[in-house]
Amino acid sequence: MSAIHVAILGFGTVGKGVYEIIRTNQERLTSLFGKEVKIVGVLVKNIEKHADYDKKLFITDNFEEIISLPNLDVVIEAMVGVEPSYTYLKQAIEKRCHAITANKFMFAHHGPELLELAKNFGTTVGYEATVGGGIPIIQTLNKLLNINQVFKIEGILNGTTNFILTKMREEGLSFTDALALAQQLGYAEADPTNDVEGFDAFYKMMILSQVCFGEQPDWKNVTRVGITEVTPEKIQQYEKENVRIKHIASLTKTDEGIEAVLKPVVVPPTDPLYHIEGVENAISVYGHIVGRICLSGPGAGMFPTASAIIEDLVHAYAKSPAIVTSA
Amino acid sequence: MSAIHVAILGFGTVGKGVYEIIRTNQERLTSLFGKEVKIVGVLVKNIEKHADYDKKLFITDNFEEIISLPNLDVVIEAMVGVEPSYTYLKQAIEKRCHAITANKFMFAHHGPELLELAKNFGTTVGYEATVGGGIPIIQTLNKLLNINQVFKIEGILNGTTNFILTKMREEGLSFTDALALAQQLGYAEADPTNDVEGFDAFYKMMILSQVCFGEQPDWKNVTRVGITEVTPEKIQQYEKENVRIKHIASLTKTDEGIEAVLKPVVVPPTDPLYHIEGVENAISVYGHIVGRICLSGPGAGMFPTASAIIEDLVHAYAKSPAIVTSA
Repeated sequence: MSAIHVAILGFGTVGKGVYEIIRTNQERLTSLFGKEVKIVGVLVKNIEKHADYDKKLFITDNFEEIISLPNLDVVIEAMVGVEPSYTYLKQAIEKRCHAITANKFMFAHHGPELLELAKNFGTTVGYEATVGGGIPIIQTLNKLLNINQVFKIEGILNGTTNFILTKMREEGLSFTDALALAQQLGYAEADPTNDVEGFDAFYKMMILSQVCFGEQPDWKNVTRVGITEVTPEKIQQYEKENVRIKHIASLTKTDEGIEAVLKPVVVPPTDPLYHIEGVENAISVYGHIVGRICLSGPGAGMFPTASAIIEDLVHAYAKSPAIVTSA
Repeated sequence: MSAIHVAILGFGTVGKGVYEIIRTNQERLTSLFGKEVKIVGVLVKNIEKHADYDKKLFITDNFEEIISLPNLDVVIEAMVGVEPSYTYLKQAIEKRCHAITANKFMFAHHGPELLELAKNFGTTVGYEATVGGGIPIIQTLNKLLNINQVFKIEGILNGTTNFILTKMREEGLSFTDALALAQQLGYAEADPTNDVEGFDAFYKMMILSQVCFGEQPDWKNVTRVGITEVTPEKIQQYEKENVRIKHIASLTKTDEGIEAVLKPVVVPPTDPLYHIEGVENAISVYGHIVGRICLSGPGAGMFPTASAIIEDLVHAYAKSPAIVTSA
C-alpha cells in the first residue's frame, strides 16, 4: 500500500501532538486517505533531547536531511518565529509538498506569499491551527460562508489573557497573581509579553483579516492594547453593573478600509463573548445575510491545535478521489 | 451569459427569504458562479395570495409545470410535511436537478433515500437549513471534522422553547403566558405542539444523528419530553443554585448504539448551552481529538434559514471549476 509521507518541523507541544494523533489514529487515517500516513522525519533543535522519544523515528537537526527525503508529500511546521520557518515552507512548496503551519507569527507576515507560491506549484497551505486552536474558524470562513459577506469579526483569540481576566474576576486576584497562576499551570510563558501585551492575538487578527477581507490593515494603524492595566477593582465594579471586561480583537470592514482594534472591551451578557471563560477562545462572525454566528472551543493545547493540523492534512487531500468519494 | 435556473417550492417565510436573497445579491452570486442565478418558477398553494408579489415571477400551483420547466438546475423546497415534498424532490433529482431542502420533518423521514438517489443521478442534496437555521452545523460536521470522531452532540435546537424558558426565567412568566408572548411575537404558532412537545427538535436530532453517526436511533427508543411541565418556581429555584433549565437534545454514541434524549436538562454556567438565550440555537460537538466545540447563532427566521439554503446552492456547484478557482 502506498503512503502519505509527512515531515514535522518542530517537536514541541504541537509537533508532538501531531505525532501522537497520527500514531494513534492510523486506522481512521487510512480509511480517510485510502493509504497510510507515515511520519518520515522530524526536525528538532536538539537531537539528544528527543533521542528516546521513539527509536524508530528519524530525527534530525538538519533541514536539508528533511527536504531531501524521497517522496515527501507534506511538511507540517510547528515552530516559532518568522525564520527559518518561512524559508523552509517555501522550499517544501517548491518541492510540491503540501505545507501546513501552526505558526501565526510567520503566517501573519508571509501567508499571502506562501498561498500564492502554493497555487503556482499546484499544492496547498493549511493554516487552521494558526487561529483559535481546534475551532475550525479558517475553514468556516473560507468554505462555509460564501454568499455571506463577512463585515465584522470579534474574537477572544488568546486563552492566556482570557484565563487571567477570568481568575481576576472570579477570585479577585491582581493581574500579577493571576499571571503567576497562569504561568504555574503552563498557560503563560516565563516572559508573558507575547500574550499579555496582545502580540499573539494581533497576529491572529491579521490572519483573520486576510481570510475575511482579502487583505490586512496597515499594522501601524491597528490599535493593540494589552491587559496589564486592568485592575481587579475595575473588574468587580463592572461585575456589579452586569457587564464584563474581555480582551477582544475586532475587525470591521468600512468604506475607509479595515478597522482593527485589540483591547479590553466592556461587553454585556447578550454578547456571546461575555460568557467565554478560562483558556477557551471564541469568534463571532457577522455575515450580511445570516447575522451573527459564534464559534467557541479550545483555543490552544496539544491536541486541539494538532487536531486542526490533521484536519488540514485531510483538506489538502480532499480533492483526491478517495476523499471526495467518502465525503 | 448562461444561468442557473432555480425553482422554489413553497412561498412562506423561508421561500420568500430565498427569493429576496437571490434578487438582492445577483452581483455576488454571478461572481461566485460565473453565471446568473434565475428563479424560473415558484410553487404555491394559492396563486391569488401571491399574485401581486412580483409580476414577472412565474407562480403556479401545479408541480408538473415546475418540473417540466426547460433547463431546470436546482429545486429548493421550503414546504411542510413529508408529502408531497418527498415525491417532488425525488422527481427533481431524477431530472438531475440539485435538491435543497429546509424541511426537517421530511428529511428526518427520507434523508438517506434522497442522498442515495442523488448519488445515483450525479447530483446533490443540501439540507443545512433543516437544523440550526443559519448555523453551518451540517457542513461543519460533514466537511470540517474528518479525523475527529464525533461521539456526542448536545444542542438547543428549537428557538421557540428556548425563548419561552428564557422569558419564564427573566420575567417570572408562567409557561402559558410565555407561550402567549411567543405567539404574539410570531415565534410560536397557534398550535404550539410541534415546538413545545419537542417534535421539531426531535426531527432535527434525527438528522444530526444521521450526519454524525451514519444512522438514526430507533425512533421508539428516543426520549422526547417537552417543556410544558416546567414551572417558573422550578426555574427560580435553579437560578438560586446558579444552574439553568434548558431544553436540550443530546445524542451519544455508545457501544450499544445511539442514545438520544430530548428533555429539559439542568446545566451549569460552564456549559455553553447555559448562556444561550431567546430564539438563538446552539450545538456543542464533542470530537475525540479536538474536545468540545460550540456553534451558536440564529436558529430560525427568514434570512438566516434562507442564507443556509443559498450557501447549499453554492456548495452544490462547488465542484465546478468556477467555484474551485475562486475559493
